[in-house]
Amino acid sequence: MLLADEIDAYLKRLFPLARSITGEPNRETLRVLQELVPLSIGEVPSGTAVYDWVIPQEWKINDAWIENTEGHRLVDFVNCNLHVVSYSEPIDQWMTWDSLSPHVHRHPELTSAIPYRTTYYQRNWGFCVSAAQFEALSMADGNLHVVINSEFRSGSLSYGEYLLPGRSPQEILISSYICHPSMANDSLSGVLLSAFLARELARRESRKWSYRFVFVPETIGAIAYSALNEAAMSRIDIGLVATTVGGPGKLGYKQSWDSAHPINRHIQAVLNELGNDYVTYPFDVHGSDERQYSTQGFRINCATICKDRYYEYPEYHTSLDNLNLVTGRQIAEAFNAYKRLVERLEARQIYQNRIRHGEVMLSRHELYPASGGAQRPDLGGRSELDLILWLLFYCDGRLALDDIALMLDVPMASVESIVSKLASKGILNHV
Amino acid sequence: MLLADEIDAYLKRLFPLARSITGEPNRETLRVLQELVPLSIGEVPSGTAVYDWVIPQEWKINDAWIENTEGHRLVDFVNCNLHVVSYSEPIDQWMTWDSLSPHVHRHPELTSAIPYRTTYYQRNWGFCVSAAQFEALSMADGNLHVVINSEFRSGSLSYGEYLLPGRSPQEILISSYICHPSMANDSLSGVLLSAFLARELARRESRKWSYRFVFVPETIGAIAYSALNEAAMSRIDIGLVATTVGGPGKLGYKQSWDSAHPINRHIQAVLNELGNDYVTYPFDVHGSDERQYSTQGFRINCATICKDRYYEYPEYHTSLDNLNLVTGRQIAEAFNAYKRLVERLEARQIYQNRIRHGEVMLSRHELYPASGGAQRPDLGGRSELDLILWLLFYCDGRLALDDIALMLDVPMASVESIVSKLASKGILNHV
Amino acid sequence: MLLADEIDAYLKRLFPLARSITGEPNRETLRVLQELVPLSIGEVPSGTAVYDWVIPQEWKINDAWIENTEGHRLVDFVNCNLHVVSYSEPIDQWMTWDSLSPHVHRHPELTSAIPYRTTYYQRNWGFCVSAAQFEALSMADGNLHVVINSEFRSGSLSYGEYLLPGRSPQEILISSYICHPSMANDSLSGVLLSAFLARELARRESRKWSYRFVFVPETIGAIAYSALNEAAMSRIDIGLVATTVGGPGKLGYKQSWDSAHPINRHIQAVLNELGNDYVTYPFDVHGSDERQYSTQGFRINCATICKDRYYEYPEYHTSLDNLNLVTGRQIAEAFNAYKRLVERLEARQIYQNRIRHGEVMLSRHELYPASGGAQRPDLGGRSELDLILWLLFYCDGRLALDDIALMLDVPMASVESIVSKLASKGILNHV
Repeated sequence: MLLADEIDAYLKRLFPLARSITGEPNRETLRVLQELVPLSIGEVPSGTAVYDWVIPQEWKINDAWIENTEGHRLVDFVNCNLHVVSYSEPIDQWMTWDSLSPHVHRHPELTSAIPYRTTYYQRNWGFCVSAAQFEALSMADGNLHVVINSEFRSGSLSYGEYLLPGRSPQEILISSYICHPSMANDSLSGVLLSAFLARELARRESRKWSYRFVFVPETIGAIAYSALNEAAMSRIDIGLVATTVGGPGKLGYKQSWDSAHPINRHIQAVLNELGNDYVTYPFDVHGSDERQYSTQGFRINCATICKDRYYEYPEYHTSLDNLNLVTGRQIAEAFNAYKRLVERLEARQIYQNRIRHGEVMLSRHELYPASGGAQRPDLGGRSELDLILWLLFYCDGRLALDDIALMLDVPMASVESIVSKLASKGILNHV
Repeated sequence: MLLADEIDAYLKRLFPLARSITGEPNRETLRVLQELVPLSIGEVPSGTAVYDWVIPQEWKINDAWIENTEGHRLVDFVNCNLHVVSYSEPIDQWMTWDSLSPHVHRHPELTSAIPYRTTYYQRNWGFCVSAAQFEALSMADGNLHVVINSEFRSGSLSYGEYLLPGRSPQEILISSYICHPSMANDSLSGVLLSAFLARELARRESRKWSYRFVFVPETIGAIAYSALNEAAMSRIDIGLVATTVGGPGKLGYKQSWDSAHPINRHIQAVLNELGNDYVTYPFDVHGSDERQYSTQGFRINCATICKDRYYEYPEYHTSLDNLNLVTGRQIAEAFNAYKRLVERLEARQIYQNRIRHGEVMLSRHELYPASGGAQRPDLGGRSELDLILWLLFYCDGRLALDDIALMLDVPMASVESIVSKLASKGILNHV
Repeated sequence: MLLADEIDAYLKRLFPLARSITGEPNRETLRVLQELVPLSIGEVPSGTAVYDWVIPQEWKINDAWIENTEGHRLVDFVNCNLHVVSYSEPIDQWMTWDSLSPHVHRHPELTSAIPYRTTYYQRNWGFCVSAAQFEALSMADGNLHVVINSEFRSGSLSYGEYLLPGRSPQEILISSYICHPSMANDSLSGVLLSAFLARELARRESRKWSYRFVFVPETIGAIAYSALNEAAMSRIDIGLVATTVGGPGKLGYKQSWDSAHPINRHIQAVLNELGNDYVTYPFDVHGSDERQYSTQGFRINCATICKDRYYEYPEYHTSLDNLNLVTGRQIAEAFNAYKRLVERLEARQIYQNRIRHGEVMLSRHELYPASGGAQRPDLGGRSELDLILWLLFYCDGRLALDDIALMLDVPMASVESIVSKLASKGILNHV
């Protein structure tokens, strides 16, 4: 089965769930992901203090609608789970349009779109509607029956965690957020990409680095998870926040807080390899969970490869961010970039030239290329001899091969092929 | 009373005094400044060794003239105290124009100007005259009677010192020179600006930094003062030499020896705020007393904000550098720049975000802006939310707010308003 | 006698010798150089292991030719010692052109050129011929008599070494290679330049730095020499590989591996002083013996000043690299650049301003220039006063005068003249 098709199947299953920062649909989402990787599901009880935050009560939405005096439902939650502002408190009341209207939100520009709104940390209620629905509500004769059948209860915040050990205990963090209801690019695409990436990495015989996959509700979940794993998180140097990876537009990436960190170079190299235009977003304190992971206590260099990044595409945070906009094929394209990036990170290796004084006598080791100094397209236009000499020059036990590849402007695969030849002769030793 | 008018009044009183590197007019100048701030007057006896220098004898000029055989005074000290080369030895002699002429100086270009000359460290004598006077002298029939009634005596070099304590013992040096006779831009303008700035700072309830105001004869005075206060001077990081601050031309600034030092950025920021073109002079070993303060034993980063800087304006070091050229209004303009600079330095503050792990939960602290993400012109076009997040990101107990303001390209006042809000909630702690 | 003429005389004597990586012609070459400087000749026995290499057997070529059935020699070693591939094994055999032709090399472009080939580390044999000779061979009726009368024997690799002590034990390495037979630019020009440079330096009363002149066969010789002198070589910071210094084209230089190392600035300064266009070659792992000296165990910053550098001129590695191409005058031009460079290195000096606090009172030390602030062409357009002040500012016991000269963009001679004046007054102390 093609990856794009697999993703499409999961998109269809997970899209309808009314996820929020807590609740059963989140657990259901994580359970579905367990089909891909055996992630463990953790729960943080309501009321738990996590740094500057407190885990809120669980919110359950059963039903909601607005009906007119004739019993006709002008807005109905069963049609779209964006219709109710997330974390709306319950209400069951007849009221005039004038009283209701401050609680009804429409998109300022897209008439057919139902916007996405939340009221997590301020008790309130509201509906989100299309322009036509707004018009119909405002024209309704008589009062309107407003019903939100929701419940708050002491429960817990759910998260998924999947640790993939590598030969090195040094971890790479990959985080996505499971708190958005029926929107496909933000954030279901990132959740699925992350899960498929985890499966991909789990299938490897072994990994150089350890990987920490985290599926959390945005912000509060990332904070809770970090608080529960502070020591581990404080040791992590590199992170990826997978989000908005499924739009029809260009690939792009948001840089980590230290723009000179290698992770940014690696992403650029991947995107350059892929050959199309891409968008570069400098680090910003706005965004997703890199906000948490970049705070002073962690300062993880956390980047995002995206495809139609949040904030930027018109359908962002509306009902139009749906499966017409997002496809498995598109997510597979971004997946490919993440996969290549992980491969680059896996390929980060450090070698030491065993012969530190004087050049290596290539002919003695049968290393002198038969092709001599002929330029080879597969070696980035360099000759094999040239690459051998530069690698012997640079492999000093400190520079990583990818650093060297970038310095030489040569594909990593070329460097690896030459290094492996030199290592097989015992000239380069893996550090 | 307007500052410009106050300055004008002092310009009129102080301009006529025949200041030099030592002497009564210098003391008189300092005594007048005591009306503005209670500076103390120090004396360094003639013959005192200060580093590579020795304090010279005091020089007193009583009278001087050149008269022709008819008793007509072609040059007379009472008309302009620039007529006599400063530190001229006494003479009373009839001589031919041929003998006299090597001792008579005129301006190479400005015919109406009387140039300013000194002979501090080489016993000599001379007159400075206008082109017309030079012509008249050269045309005189018969010998000329040359009289300089001057005296040398063991005395002392006088300086003014005014220490303004702040909450921090770290001092900022503000130095001006009192050794120039009747010239207004160089250097009376700087002396007055400095005194008024001292008054301004003294009126503040309190100051963050301590300030060391120094009024000295140029070079020898700065050296003597530094020698007497070596330990204190060696601890100073930032200095300002106030000179030529009253011309009709553009503002400008001479950079400190380390062009990357924040003082230079601060001055640029002030001058940019003021909105007009300004001139940037890179550090140079020529100049004023920053020469002394920048030597290896001190290496103070000493800058000058100026308005028609020395060397650059045609009237420099001539009798045309007078109260027609220089006005209180012009000095007040430069004063404003210094004042803003000092305000910026006072505003240098360092904060630490108390919540180092994870973001601050803004709503819990009633910090989530009602305006949301709306861009605000008063916040440099950023939203309040944006500034809050960046300040929480950057306030790490090391970066100063002004560094952060510059990094964010946001007015300092905006940063301060947000920081004070965050500090009032106990989120940011002053370091 | 003019230097150019002296060089020409040695070119004529040394050009014909059939040098290789070992052998009598190498010793003969070194013995001739002993006329210029008393270099010592060292021998490394065949079979000696040096780092990753082993010293090969000595190769002796007595005679070689290819004759046709009529006894006519179509190729004859006595006409050109490039005719035989260096290190060819002996052969004496009649064979068809088809069998012979894989062993016969001609230049791909230059019809009159006999190319230069070696087979040091792979037992083989071959001839190098012009296009006409190749044609004649291919048209020969019947078999061809192929004779190479060569011998291999256990012997030694010869090298020359000349150590010139200086006041400082810090050494500068100057290396050239003696392994090329009758080719003038590559490498005889470099050998002669190096020997004349050694003579020049030996004639100096004294030297600040110590100099290590090394005459070795390329690669294996440099490696052998380094291995025998590892401790000394590991302490060396600066090196020069003198090669291809005699072409008719532009001067140029190959940078050392750390492009920010002062040696590169010094060479640029020399080449700029000389006033003509020059070529800059970035460091490359290809090249000459800087390859060895730049390896990790040494990392000497080794540069080359050249005139028609190897690889770049059409006659490279052919019989056309001869005394028609290369002249003593041309080598003398490059010699001049090396000499100036050495003079710059000799001039590297560090001074400390004794008066660290406050400026020096120039008049007291009779240092105030009579010319005042007049710009002087001999001081790079600066005034003497200006230079004095900057030197007093910068001479802090760490910066070398040449660093300062470059920072000030002033000829070194100007800096030196001012420094010597300041030192003579006891103001600047040599560190």
